[in-house]
Amino acid sequence: MHVLVVNCNTSPEITEVIRAGAVTAASQDTEIVAIQPAWGPESAEGFYESYVTAAAVLDAVRTHDGPFDAVVMAGYGEHGREGMRQVLDVPVVDITEASAQLACLVSYRFGVATTAVTAVAGIEESLRGAGSWSRCAGVLATRVPVSAIHQDNELALQALGETGRALLDRGADSIVLGCAGFAGLDRGLEELLGVPVLDGVACAVAVAEALVRLGKVTSKRGPFRAPSATKKWIGWPRTV
Amino acid sequence: MHVLVVNCNTSPEITEVIRAGAVTAASQDTEIVAIQPAWGPESAEGFYESYVTAAAVLDAVRTHDGPFDAVVMAGYGEHGREGMRQVLDVPVVDITEASAQLACLVSYRFGVATTAVTAVAGIEESLRGAGSWSRCAGVLATRVPVSAIHQDNELALQALGETGRALLDRGADSIVLGCAGFAGLDRGLEELLGVPVLDGVACAVAVAEALVRLGKVTSKRGPFRAPSATKKWIGWPRTV
Amino acid sequence: MHVLVVNCNTSPEITEVIRAGAVTAASQDTEIVAIQPAWGPESAEGFYESYVTAAAVLDAVRTHDGPFDAVVMAGYGEHGREGMRQVLDVPVVDITEASAQLACLVSYRFGVATTAVTAVAGIEESLRGAGSWSRCAGVLATRVPVSAIHQDNELALQALGETGRALLDRGADSIVLGCAGFAGLDRGLEELLGVPVLDGVACAVAVAEALVRLGKVTSKRGPFRAPSATKKWIGWPRTV
Amino acid sequence: MHVLVVNCNTSPEITEVIRAGAVTAASQDTEIVAIQPAWGPESAEGFYESYVTAAAVLDAVRTHDGPFDAVVMAGYGEHGREGMRQVLDVPVVDITEASAQLACLVSYRFGVATTAVTAVAGIEESLRGAGSWSRCAGVLATRVPVSAIHQDNELALQALGETGRALLDRGADSIVLGCAGFAGLDRGLEELLGVPVLDGVACAVAVAEALVRLGKVTSKRGPFRAPSATKKWIGWPRTV
Amino acid sequence: MHVLVVNCNTSPEITEVIRAGAVTAASQDTEIVAIQPAWGPESAEGFYESYVTAAAVLDAVRTHDGPFDAVVMAGYGEHGREGMRQVLDVPVVDITEASAQLACLVSYRFGVATTAVTAVAGIEESLRGAGSWSRCAGVLATRVPVSAIHQDNELALQALGETGRALLDRGADSIVLGCAGFAGLDRGLEELLGVPVLDGVACAVAVAEALVRLGKVTSKRGPFRAPSATKKWIGWPRTV
Amino acid sequence: MHVLVVNCNTSPEITEVIRAGAVTAASQDTEIVAIQPAWGPESAEGFYESYVTAAAVLDAVRTHDGPFDAVVMAGYGEHGREGMRQVLDVPVVDITEASAQLACLVSYRFGVATTAVTAVAGIEESLRGAGSWSRCAGVLATRVPVSAIHQDNELALQALGETGRALLDRGADSIVLGCAGFAGLDRGLEELLGVPVLDGVACAVAVAEALVRLGKVTSKRGPFRAPSATKKWIGWPRTV
Repeated sequence: MHVLVVNCNTSPEITEVIRAGAVTAASQDTEIVAIQPAWGPESAEGFYESYVTAAAVLDAVRTHDGPFDAVVMAGYGEHGREGMRQVLDVPVVDITEASAQLACLVSYRFGVATTAVTAVAGIEESLRGAGSWSRCAGVLATRVPVSAIHQDNELALQALGETGRALLDRGADSIVLGCAGFAGLDRGLEELLGVPVLDGVACAVAVAEALVRLGKVTSKRGPFRAPSATKKWIGWPRTV
Repeated sequence: MHVLVVNCNTSPEITEVIRAGAVTAASQDTEIVAIQPAWGPESAEGFYESYVTAAAVLDAVRTHDGPFDAVVMAGYGEHGREGMRQVLDVPVVDITEASAQLACLVSYRFGVATTAVTAVAGIEESLRGAGSWSRCAGVLATRVPVSAIHQDNELALQALGETGRALLDRGADSIVLGCAGFAGLDRGLEELLGVPVLDGVACAVAVAEALVRLGKVTSKRGPFRAPSATKKWIGWPRTV
Repeated sequence: MHVLVVNCNTSPEITEVIRAGAVTAASQDTEIVAIQPAWGPESAEGFYESYVTAAAVLDAVRTHDGPFDAVVMAGYGEHGREGMRQVLDVPVVDITEASAQLACLVSYRFGVATTAVTAVAGIEESLRGAGSWSRCAGVLATRVPVSAIHQDNELALQALGETGRALLDRGADSIVLGCAGFAGLDRGLEELLGVPVLDGVACAVAVAEALVRLGKVTSKRGPFRAPSATKKWIGWPRTV
Repeated sequence: MHVLVVNCNTSPEITEVIRAGAVTAASQDTEIVAIQPAWGPESAEGFYESYVTAAAVLDAVRTHDGPFDAVVMAGYGEHGREGMRQVLDVPVVDITEASAQLACLVSYRFGVATTAVTAVAGIEESLRGAGSWSRCAGVLATRVPVSAIHQDNELALQALGETGRALLDRGADSIVLGCAGFAGLDRGLEELLGVPVLDGVACAVAVAEALVRLGKVTSKRGPFRAPSATKKWIGWPRTV
Repeated sequence: MHVLVVNCNTSPEITEVIRAGAVTAASQDTEIVAIQPAWGPESAEGFYESYVTAAAVLDAVRTHDGPFDAVVMAGYGEHGREGMRQVLDVPVVDITEASAQLACLVSYRFGVATTAVTAVAGIEESLRGAGSWSRCAGVLATRVPVSAIHQDNELALQALGETGRALLDRGADSIVLGCAGFAGLDRGLEELLGVPVLDGVACAVAVAEALVRLGKVTSKRGPFRAPSATKKWIGWPRTV
Repeated sequence: MHVLVVNCNTSPEITEVIRAGAVTAASQDTEIVAIQPAWGPESAEGFYESYVTAAAVLDAVRTHDGPFDAVVMAGYGEHGREGMRQVLDVPVVDITEASAQLACLVSYRFGVATTAVTAVAGIEESLRGAGSWSRCAGVLATRVPVSAIHQDNELALQALGETGRALLDRGADSIVLGCAGFAGLDRGLEELLGVPVLDGVACAVAVAEALVRLGKVTSKRGPFRAPSATKKWIGWPRTV
């Protein structure tokens, strides 16, 4: 099985963190291919950057050459998943959705620890759209910039610990890592906090594998039916 | 990996249908053990029967002898999952939750085709509690009794087809099989309707495997902390 | 008029507290019969215990011998009321619902002071199901164990006072006693807090009397229609 | 016990229908006093008329001479109950709230059969404010004018039967009479439809009695604290 | 264009504040006519006073002599707008709705700074009815009496600053002035807080002008169709 | 005053329709500048196209040369408004929000008549995000392709009439034109249906003018604070 994991930003370091996390979570017979958009910001921490990455990620997958059985969208809380489901038949798993779903199975209410304050509102809307909001105890920012995580894992873990405790105080009994760049930090945070910690990339890979094994594909009857093939487009898909 | 699959009713025929469905969905290295309560109704199709099976299923798992890494609760829309999460550390996956979650990844809105009219209200409450209600287009009854499904699969499939079409008309673009006894009928219904059909037993087994592989266990910090060990009980757990 | 009041746990002391509270609230021509299940925990303070008591209470009423015109379910926030409504024609009044309803008539938002932290989530779900959640300012735990209340009423009252004040700070302008074992403490707490305090047992008895006088019975058209009489059951109803 | 029942409109015929219904529902030792505003419309069937009656009813009660232990506001879906609770210490029971509450105890979802189409929106808002909306299957108009009900009870009953059946088709399993002028028609409609029918006036009187017997008064801590006594008013309270 | 601006209370000083604010916000070719009810309280700070002013304002507009192209209801959070829409064809703009709408265009979540604590609940209900509640971060009271604002603008501004900061801490990124008497204080508060501040009177005048220019009138098909012309009324409309 | 009106698609014909509609609605002293993205689809009728246009519209405004006092986003139900608010200080008015807001002032519930079935889900999400969903009676598709509207206005009007009547039957008492390409058809549809019809482009221009006159700018405190100026971007902003 081939799972295509798409980072939403243009930072190769973060793509590598995501790739490594995906490989660790994947079954032995799953091949992970990690890509990133050809254009856009080095990190997405707010509405503006999120909307640009949504288009850039769609562009990256549409122009990607090579087979895949499922796509994992590795931008926590970012826009675009419904558009991806329109243009693909294979399952599309957003790390935001997958981690919230698994959190709901091992806890009563999850809290999300994200990076920047400006990302919070978009994450809340994404969870609302996914239908998981009623089980969320809150979304809080660690104030660790996305670009800083992989440079100092210890600092990131410490910040996640503080934010995690604030979420537990608000009624959460599990924590979701609210940034793809946090991939791999779930074990460390579980040791700190004593509650389940859900890593979006790992969750999404595992759920994508489950969907492929079950033979499920994306519905083409509703809002995800393929876009018109005859519509005129200018400058799309594009290369930089 | 051992996955304990618990039918909610006392019908050995339905337990066998569920077991077969679980085995089909499971990975090769997963061993499925299917059990049923020692007491209770031969099927649960409404609040009264659901509450009795909730206790009977808790009783069955507590008195079950043998190791397991996850529990699948194979009673669609039935009560009890939060109680099971309290008394176990391993992941507890309710087929109602798991199938709704996977449906949300491959479609925009799912519809539930269940058995009896009397079961509808309880299913709606279960989906609300799970947090998946906002993505549900409706719950409709096929009026096929639980006990009749395995006796005439063709008839069941035909009824599912009619109810499924009614759900698509209401805006669903995927169908969830709203009874564990429907296990295995997803492929046939997909052919009839041309949309993804989610079989709760298969979904729950796949999701349970994912949780075990990811090393996740049930949070013991919130409402799922273990019940007091020193509390006095009368006649519990019990044997018939 | 005969009102059957059912404690949800197997503690005869709590049954006696409930019986006394019911008698005080009842009209002169109402005969109170208080019973308790033959099996189950000595108190219900979380999901697991609640699901067992739901079945045990259904069992107790089904095997009860003697006439009654209404049932009061005296387990605050516990499961089972919809099942009881299925198997009976007479009105079934849950103390959770009745006290929330009367609180809504004499205040703008009520707060619930319950016993254990583990009971909070189940109470919130019960109020949501009843339809009273939008008028609830919060559910907080006194951390007084159910079994300790009748042993030291003064201590219980003091704890209720502290928790009650926290609820008033959250916007409540009335308090609901969130445990049947608190029966009879409403007057004392009203003196402490200066706001209406609703005792579930008293409220439920008064409302049950009202329903009987108005000649109302439980609807048999919707989800509360009687369960199938021909269904096969194993080991139910039961005696220990 | 004295219960003051206030019709919201200026029709003495409807006041008499309400008074008779209240007397029938009341206990022997309860004295019913029925009044009506000195000014306003002969019936309230929409927002404009409702807002005028709200003020007129507040005026009528403030200028009423004589003792009472509770007030029943007998205008179905009409505005004003929160204002009445501010100016009185005794319980204030709105027929809209009381009938919805009792309906929730004897059925799963109630439907409201009212008079004019223009009254529907206001009734929905009243139920939402009361917190009972989530248990309501719908509000439908019989198109019987308020003033016509008492002139031809048979015609009113027939219209209620048709509207009631439409509500049952929408999932209601009980019916609430959505106009004080329908007082006394619950029995006849129960015979027609075979489900519980709740008469607001009867329900409110029974619930008011319950509150008085339980010794409950209106909270003065929150939004219902008494208005300032020193505020300057012009032309209020008034006489025509 | 003539815009009729109606103060909800009987204080000529507040009417003058409102008139001045409306004139400042209006276009050069718009003539502002500001009126006040002939009866009622000198300020509305709670449910009781609000319901009386609703009727008094309806009375004032119905008996007003002179042409107008739109009505601005200048009572923040007060009742009556739906009734006014029934009796008029021209647009009716409530300052509560208009300021919330414009706030939603220049910020993500608005907070409301009102006068008395007793006014908070009614304001929340008004925003819920208007459909703007999901974008509101909270309603807080400055505890400045309505009658004191125009006597000491500096004090009012200081109190608004404190309350505004508390709202920003709760997640608001704009502030709505929650009393018509605050008209004109938006600029000062914007300087204090550095976020947009919406003055209801100014917003409502600007939106009313927009509606008139667009040629829009009130729908007469739904709940705002005109009340029956043949209905019998007693003592209405009235003069003191 | 300069108002920059941005079509979301790359069709110059639709940009011209939008420009003409905006000019008609604008005050004499307002200069309308209408632009369109340099890349993307000729129309947006679903999630995929919507996400691409969101980025293309952001790109178009960021690279636009010339002064403007407000932006009108003329893509009905399309994504991106929150991102635009981040990168601009001047008011950003989405036609989806503005038309829903004005509809709420002249009717009780609005219905949206849009073009393609695939656009419905995205429109519903946009209204939910805007906070106007609770006042919406439904979104229905005329099945008129965006590109066909300006080619045959009579056909478009006829289709709007049919869809509009279906929305009135669902409880709407006003209609919102659910596509920027419908600009200018409001008068014709008002004549057909006899209820207010809101044209998004006209409403947004009028509301943008109101915001500019009131001197309001976009809040920079919350999620709309400007994106980091030091972040590294690849290939953005871009030209085709």
